[in-house]
Amino acid sequence: MEIQLAKKAGFCFGVKRAVETADSLSKKEHDDVIYSYGEIIHNNNVLELLKSQGIKVANSMEEITNSCARVIIRAHGVGKEIYNELNGINADIIDMTCPFVKKIHDIVNEYYDKGYQIIIVGDKDHPEVIGINGWCENSAIILYDNIDESKLNNISKACIVAQTTITRQKWNEIINLAINNIKHIVINDTICNATSTRQAEAIDIAKQVDLMIVIGSPKSSNTKKLYSVCKEFCEATYLVEGSSNLKQIMDTINITSIQKVGITAGASTPKWVIDDVIELLK
Amino acid sequence: MEIQLAKKAGFCFGVKRAVETADSLSKKEHDDVIYSYGEIIHNNNVLELLKSQGIKVANSMEEITNSCARVIIRAHGVGKEIYNELNGINADIIDMTCPFVKKIHDIVNEYYDKGYQIIIVGDKDHPEVIGINGWCENSAIILYDNIDESKLNNISKACIVAQTTITRQKWNEIINLAINNIKHIVINDTICNATSTRQAEAIDIAKQVDLMIVIGSPKSSNTKKLYSVCKEFCEATYLVEGSSNLKQIMDTINITSIQKVGITAGASTPKWVIDDVIELLK
Repeated sequence: MEIQLAKKAGFCFGVKRAVETADSLSKKEHDDVIYSYGEIIHNNNVLELLKSQGIKVANSMEEITNSCARVIIRAHGVGKEIYNELNGINADIIDMTCPFVKKIHDIVNEYYDKGYQIIIVGDKDHPEVIGINGWCENSAIILYDNIDESKLNNISKACIVAQTTITRQKWNEIINLAINNIKHIVINDTICNATSTRQAEAIDIAKQVDLMIVIGSPKSSNTKKLYSVCKEFCEATYLVEGSSNLKQIMDTINITSIQKVGITAGASTPKWVIDDVIELLK
Repeated sequence: MEIQLAKKAGFCFGVKRAVETADSLSKKEHDDVIYSYGEIIHNNNVLELLKSQGIKVANSMEEITNSCARVIIRAHGVGKEIYNELNGINADIIDMTCPFVKKIHDIVNEYYDKGYQIIIVGDKDHPEVIGINGWCENSAIILYDNIDESKLNNISKACIVAQTTITRQKWNEIINLAINNIKHIVINDTICNATSTRQAEAIDIAKQVDLMIVIGSPKSSNTKKLYSVCKEFCEATYLVEGSSNLKQIMDTINITSIQKVGITAGASTPKWVIDDVIELLK
């Protein structure tokens, strides 16, 4: 069995930076608990490791009980009001917002102040999109699927940004809807290249293999998309969180018929999880 | 023979305003010659009438010999440097630039000053486009057909405007090229509704008739486009400048086979030319 591992599998720049910072902070001596505001990444393996090192996940401000707490803002970023509330309790903010997401916050903040209607192309329930929307007082129109085009009527000027992990196809589709309805639009292509490069490489591999394994959390937006683009080119594509998950799947497949296996991983998947999967396959 | 005349045939708002102003000025008593900077509209009938009333066409600054001359700027508009030169000879400028075109000048001027690359979607040889380009020191990238996409590489921020008379199809096509190449784009849909409404109505009529007549000059951008969209739906579509032109065409057609005739006219075609054509058909 030949295994082909994607070069761009795993942690992207922003996630790597956030996880490594959390990891190194948790290893230093300190009295206070360290919070991460929301799960630091969509990966149970990493989360359990960090938990064991004393990083506590706070899902809301109410869960941060002590003032002057140290609070890590994850790569996904948060809205303006969360910074205000954290400053209100004198929290020591460790801001690990991905710089590419921070740029989106700045654009949204600037154009909202100028009176533009903000439009976000992305998943309204995704933390990154919720955070972006928090830079225009949660007034954004958020578009992805099943679009009600009437929402775009009567807008004189709009500023459009993209959730970093959406596909270029989805972006183009929605830009076309927007330009048919709005006269003056500021378009900011904020799709992260890390995502599209990872997808393009995964497609290349999926075309050539009998079995394609995508490693990552089913909660992760970029992992789910990686799975769906691979599935288009390789019917036998599976999404697994780690090696234990893979074992169950292997039991259901006729392994002898498989000559080539492709592997890629979402932006929140650490290297050791990928290594585990490869080990199991071998 | 049933004749169906488009409601939106003929003069658009901007042209009507320019021609009526030229006409009324030429009828007033005055000592000076009145110049129009370029042909006031693309229509020989109107131009001859105005010429007979003392409106002289100046195709360049050199042709305006007397200082303090009265100079009409036509609906198409001109670049910033022409205003400067006219002011330099103390000309009395009668600015009949269509307000929709003037708005394009303002956008281009503003974003050029902010360091944006200006992109004009339109015909590089059309006076309107030449005028628009004169608001960014003639530095615009002008796109229409046979596009060399490499021109769009390495542009960090761009501002796109449309020649008022282009089709929405062409606009969408070029916006898609642009968004695939440039990260930050300010899109200004400056297509004039008068043009698209006229086109949509003409298509509706062309679908129902045996013969479609488009009245206007072959020099006029919007007339040529009106002709080509009608031709798609009615093979027997003809472009005529007026009734004399139509006579020649009628000689070549088997008129007895025609039951329904559709008529539309470009933005530069005066009402009396349309009336003449209807009279001849009757």
